[in-house]
Amino acid sequence: MLYCVKMDVNIPRDIPSEEVEAIKAAEKARATDIQRSGKWPHLWRVVGQYSNISVFDVESNDELHALLSSLPLFPFMTIQVTPLAKHPSSIA
Amino acid sequence: MLYCVKMDVNIPRDIPSEEVEAIKAAEKARATDIQRSGKWPHLWRVVGQYSNISVFDVESNDELHALLSSLPLFPFMTIQVTPLAKHPSSIA
Amino acid sequence: MLYCVKMDVNIPRDIPSEEVEAIKAAEKARATDIQRSGKWPHLWRVVGQYSNISVFDVESNDELHALLSSLPLFPFMTIQVTPLAKHPSSIA
Amino acid sequence: MLYCVKMDVNIPRDIPSEEVEAIKAAEKARATDIQRSGKWPHLWRVVGQYSNISVFDVESNDELHALLSSLPLFPFMTIQVTPLAKHPSSIA
Amino acid sequence: MLYCVKMDVNIPRDIPSEEVEAIKAAEKARATDIQRSGKWPHLWRVVGQYSNISVFDVESNDELHALLSSLPLFPFMTIQVTPLAKHPSSIA
Amino acid sequence: MLYCVKMDVNIPRDIPSEEVEAIKAAEKARATDIQRSGKWPHLWRVVGQYSNISVFDVESNDELHALLSSLPLFPFMTIQVTPLAKHPSSIA
Amino acid sequence: MLYCVKMDVNIPRDIPSEEVEAIKAAEKARATDIQRSGKWPHLWRVVGQYSNISVFDVESNDELHALLSSLPLFPFMTIQVTPLAKHPSSIA
Amino acid sequence: MLYCVKMDVNIPRDIPSEEVEAIKAAEKARATDIQRSGKWPHLWRVVGQYSNISVFDVESNDELHALLSSLPLFPFMTIQVTPLAKHPSSIA
Amino acid sequence: MLYCVKMDVNIPRDIPSEEVEAIKAAEKARATDIQRSGKWPHLWRVVGQYSNISVFDVESNDELHALLSSLPLFPFMTIQVTPLAKHPSSIA
Amino acid sequence: MLYCVKMDVNIPRDIPSEEVEAIKAAEKARATDIQRSGKWPHLWRVVGQYSNISVFDVESNDELHALLSSLPLFPFMTIQVTPLAKHPSSIA
Repeated sequence: MLYCVKMDVNIPRDIPSEEVEAIKAAEKARATDIQRSGKWPHLWRVVGQYSNISVFDVESNDELHALLSSLPLFPFMTIQVTPLAKHPSSIA
Repeated sequence: MLYCVKMDVNIPRDIPSEEVEAIKAAEKARATDIQRSGKWPHLWRVVGQYSNISVFDVESNDELHALLSSLPLFPFMTIQVTPLAKHPSSIA
Repeated sequence: MLYCVKMDVNIPRDIPSEEVEAIKAAEKARATDIQRSGKWPHLWRVVGQYSNISVFDVESNDELHALLSSLPLFPFMTIQVTPLAKHPSSIA
Repeated sequence: MLYCVKMDVNIPRDIPSEEVEAIKAAEKARATDIQRSGKWPHLWRVVGQYSNISVFDVESNDELHALLSSLPLFPFMTIQVTPLAKHPSSIA
Repeated sequence: MLYCVKMDVNIPRDIPSEEVEAIKAAEKARATDIQRSGKWPHLWRVVGQYSNISVFDVESNDELHALLSSLPLFPFMTIQVTPLAKHPSSIA
Repeated sequence: MLYCVKMDVNIPRDIPSEEVEAIKAAEKARATDIQRSGKWPHLWRVVGQYSNISVFDVESNDELHALLSSLPLFPFMTIQVTPLAKHPSSIA
Repeated sequence: MLYCVKMDVNIPRDIPSEEVEAIKAAEKARATDIQRSGKWPHLWRVVGQYSNISVFDVESNDELHALLSSLPLFPFMTIQVTPLAKHPSSIA
Repeated sequence: MLYCVKMDVNIPRDIPSEEVEAIKAAEKARATDIQRSGKWPHLWRVVGQYSNISVFDVESNDELHALLSSLPLFPFMTIQVTPLAKHPSSIA
Repeated sequence: MLYCVKMDVNIPRDIPSEEVEAIKAAEKARATDIQRSGKWPHLWRVVGQYSNISVFDVESNDELHALLSSLPLFPFMTIQVTPLAKHPSSIA
Repeated sequence: MLYCVKMDVNIPRDIPSEEVEAIKAAEKARATDIQRSGKWPHLWRVVGQYSNISVFDVESNDELHALLSSLPLFPFMTIQVTPLAKHPSSIA
């Protein structure tokens, strides 16, 4: 089941830079894991923004929320979720 | 080169229903052709809306505009284009 | 799996009133059927608006879109879908 | 009398983490109490957000405001209230 | 129980002018009745707009919706409802 | 001459709590004085928000601005002013 | 007493062109009269739009509404009113 | 050449109050100078807001930007500029 | 003196197609003339929209309004004008 | 391939002024370099704002993102990107 997810990242400036680097490294590791599991098939950068547009493929709303809230950057992101359905003209 | 494209369809009610059906059939044929060419790799329905979220893979802005404006429903769609770049954490 | 759905109804004035009545009757019948199936557990009127706030309980995004687009008023509604997850403080 | 209530939580970063934990624990306890009283029949998490969509069942606008402002997280929430009425097609 | 209600009126141009006049007369009569009942204590014109800001005093959300939807101009109004509570600094 | 005024209060967190209490007490005193003068006939709490909807009855725009800017919470409020006129259907 | 007023004009296309011309001529005459009375001291065109930004100088909210609603284009305008006060740094 | 300019002032709280007073005094002096030069013919307070609506009369876009950015409060203002043209119905 | 101008075109469907073609041809001719005069140095299509982003180089606000309102599509466009100034980091 | 880019700059106040000056100098140097490369053909100041409207001429979305994110002020800018195509009426 697919969802389009837009994540806008805004890391507060009062976090020490080493901590920021640690969070980003953890984020990258977690994002890699979820992608490898097949549940995050697409992850793109929005040009000019510290944002991504992603597609998730999960079993349920609860699983999607669990994945998103497991991201180390979750507390610093504004996330917008759009549920997707099969399009009648899609040849996929 | 990838773009996220959201298309909201709103067909005016004063078009005769046979004409509407013809436009929709032509739209489906054109959408199939573009998808088969590899330039429209993703086409999803937004749940609850007469809208789609799509990903296009084209050579240039001009090619994207040419493809979008070649769609029979183009005059009846509100289209929003977001240029995408490679995400540093993507494993794709 | 739950979704919060807001539907704003706007029936075009050029539909003959008998046809409007027929559509509304069909809508009511269809809404009753879906509610009886257990897939539409809550349906409330928004005070002062020709709108409702609903909760759907379905298996998938595709099922939700199928249900919503089966409503006779679907062509005349603006629909906004919010996926819901279990809340950690809910006692339900 | 029912109201749909959306609460977006945004806890300031300058509150010490122990204090935040204490507030959250108090919030959970208070939310449990109100739910048990029957006045907060539904509480759902919005997927991807530190937000909830809730339904309250109270006697009056004043009672709703009293309940909402009694929540320990009240000072840190943006709250939107939509009054609900019985829907003519509801089978509830 | 008080509610602040803003009503924006937009009468479609395809209604014959005599019918419009009849609707307006019926609206005025109905508005007068509700005001006399004490349930619509304040009705003001917004300067420069075909809109009003009103205060209603009713027993319930359902009663408010019943009153608003009984207005002959109801199908032609966009209505926004804000529930009000007693203010701790009010001397009323 | 009447105005509808909406005030949203947002007190910065860096003000010491005793000072906040003093400001709130001064606000209440000032609000009481203006209400007693007859120039602030209505003051209601918006349910779920640290906001009020008020009606002022003053001689001029300048007097309204003088009253609003005399409120101790003025620096911490977002204020929206809507001029009101007599409504032709009002029985007041 | 001054007000800043923005008027956006949108004349429906179903009005016969002679009637439109008559309305515009009447509008110009009425606008000239009000300006000559001293109550409409400023009237400017917004570049690129069928809109104006104006300043009115009237005795009351009611007088302003009476003037605005006396304009022949009033039914076809969206009007936004901002009450103005004397600025402490103005040398006027 | 005229422009309508709206300035919303928001002075950060971390500036010491003496410095704020100095900035405000310098702002007033600079505003007086520009007004005396004839380039800032109108300056009004927006009722209820720390904002002004102004009209500037300058030779060019560059001159307007130079004037606005010369204001001591410029770093703390959100400024919106609307170019004005002569209105065909203006008698000025 | 430069301005960034965004024009969104929306031609009403009730204009006969021959008339639409005539208007478009006249628009193209007029746009060509203005471009050749040097006053419309840039004209770009917005990808996916019946819109353009343009840069005009004119003597005054009045000249810009005169040019824009001389376009045959002017009655069917929503136009947004942003005055530009020289940027201190521009090497142009 | 052209893009219209709007950049709004907002430098946090907690950065020491020398550091701000260093960032601005580095920004100016980098902006000069990119302009000299021919990839940033237009850079204009928006009147009254700490913003610019620019046109970039690059090979791909990825190159545009690389250029924008190489700007020293990138972390402090809100950036909006609009892909441009050739306009059929452009004589360029």
